Amino acid sequence: MQLGILYGISVGTGDPDLITVKGLRILQTVDIVTFPQGIGDKLGVAEKIIRQWLKPQQTTIALDFPYVREQDILESAWQKSAKIIGQYLQQGKNVAFACEGDVSFYSTFTYLANTLKQLHPEAIIETVPGVCSPTAAASDLQIPLTVRNQRLTILPAMYTVEELETALDSAEVVVLLKVSSVYQQVWQILQKRGLLNSSWVVEKASYSDRKIYRNLQLHPNLKLPYFSLLLIQVC
Amino acid sequence: MQLGILYGISVGTGDPDLITVKGLRILQTVDIVTFPQGIGDKLGVAEKIIRQWLKPQQTTIALDFPYVREQDILESAWQKSAKIIGQYLQQGKNVAFACEGDVSFYSTFTYLANTLKQLHPEAIIETVPGVCSPTAAASDLQIPLTVRNQRLTILPAMYTVEELETALDSAEVVVLLKVSSVYQQVWQILQKRGLLNSSWVVEKASYSDRKIYRNLQLHPNLKLPYFSLLLIQVC
Repeated sequence: MQLGILYGISVGTGDPDLITVKGLRILQTVDIVTFPQGIGDKLGVAEKIIRQWLKPQQTTIALDFPYVREQDILESAWQKSAKIIGQYLQQGKNVAFACEGDVSFYSTFTYLANTLKQLHPEAIIETVPGVCSPTAAASDLQIPLTVRNQRLTILPAMYTVEELETALDSAEVVVLLKVSSVYQQVWQILQKRGLLNSSWVVEKASYSDRKIYRNLQLHPNLKLPYFSLLLIQVC
Repeated sequence: MQLGILYGISVGTGDPDLITVKGLRILQTVDIVTFPQGIGDKLGVAEKIIRQWLKPQQTTIALDFPYVREQDILESAWQKSAKIIGQYLQQGKNVAFACEGDVSFYSTFTYLANTLKQLHPEAIIETVPGVCSPTAAASDLQIPLTVRNQRLTILPAMYTVEELETALDSAEVVVLLKVSSVYQQVWQILQKRGLLNSSWVVEKASYSDRKIYRNLQLHPNLKLPYFSLLLIQVC
């Protein structure tokens, strides 16, 4: 029997309507829809985004991707998830993995797809791009992310002070993803450089309950959720 | 009469199905749909992407955004377009501006919106984010754009050799947009750094006739169209 296809579908940043037409069509026609399991009793982020789009006859599977850094625990989780998906593919079923934001942008899907390829080198994997958080946040802020010849640097969660200084020295626009754990430290650097008035924080970009902080001079301390980003216009 | 709303709608990178559900809904319900005029007799890029989605009763207007650098010519074009849109808004009509890629990512919409705000400070402008070329290209290449703590730097068209060297020194992933005019020069730098085998060129990301160049060692010279980008994995 021919193997089913694994689709990595970008479902956007929060607003369910930010899924693409292509992503939605595939999402609604596959047999099995998978997504990262939420923490504790909570629904996962991607699951929450897509649940209004699913059909009653579709099977949904929450896959466990633990929030840890230990490589062996992570790899064992990827193996387990890839095996589950592989079994459905071998039955000729098509499987979607719903991924918050864009599937190629700091996404769990990368590891899942790589593990699946090791287990089933013949498997076909396709991805559908989507809206990622920096552009969603810019729309929320009603400002351009970038114009003309501005260089853009995006730093993910685990950046150092030195990396931030380098980025501010060599790009006109800098976006810090998942800024919550280092916000105070970043604030000090922005203050030193006089950039607090050209910086914005967006919590939960594109969600109906998103929050925007515009005048950061007033916010040296912010208790932010995990999905918060900081956008800095350096020039 | 209440002014209509101007919507800046990201229509994605080429595949018409990469518009978001939200973008499509607004696009199909506004009275007037505008987009940048094509060059000569050709349809514009955004126009080509959306034409399958338009309804017969919708009025379409191709706006002239000349491909020049002279600020006075550009400003006069923005003024003219903003005036046309402003007239419809004053009639209470809602207007969409269809924008290839994402509306906040190096987009003409920024200038149009700013000019409209000067003419009609009371006008409501909303934007809908969308798929931008770096993530679309990564999906075409079937590689992640970024993983883990990789820093991403995006350089738009008018970068210098020095800017490129700095980006390669300070980010793990570098994307060069609109690389066609400087490709040979960039190729030399990538060869010098041994990066040709971890670099890819994507022409017309997400289009059905897109082209991918994988082994750049074999391609010191490429005649590329305007919408071509180069993705470099530095580490």
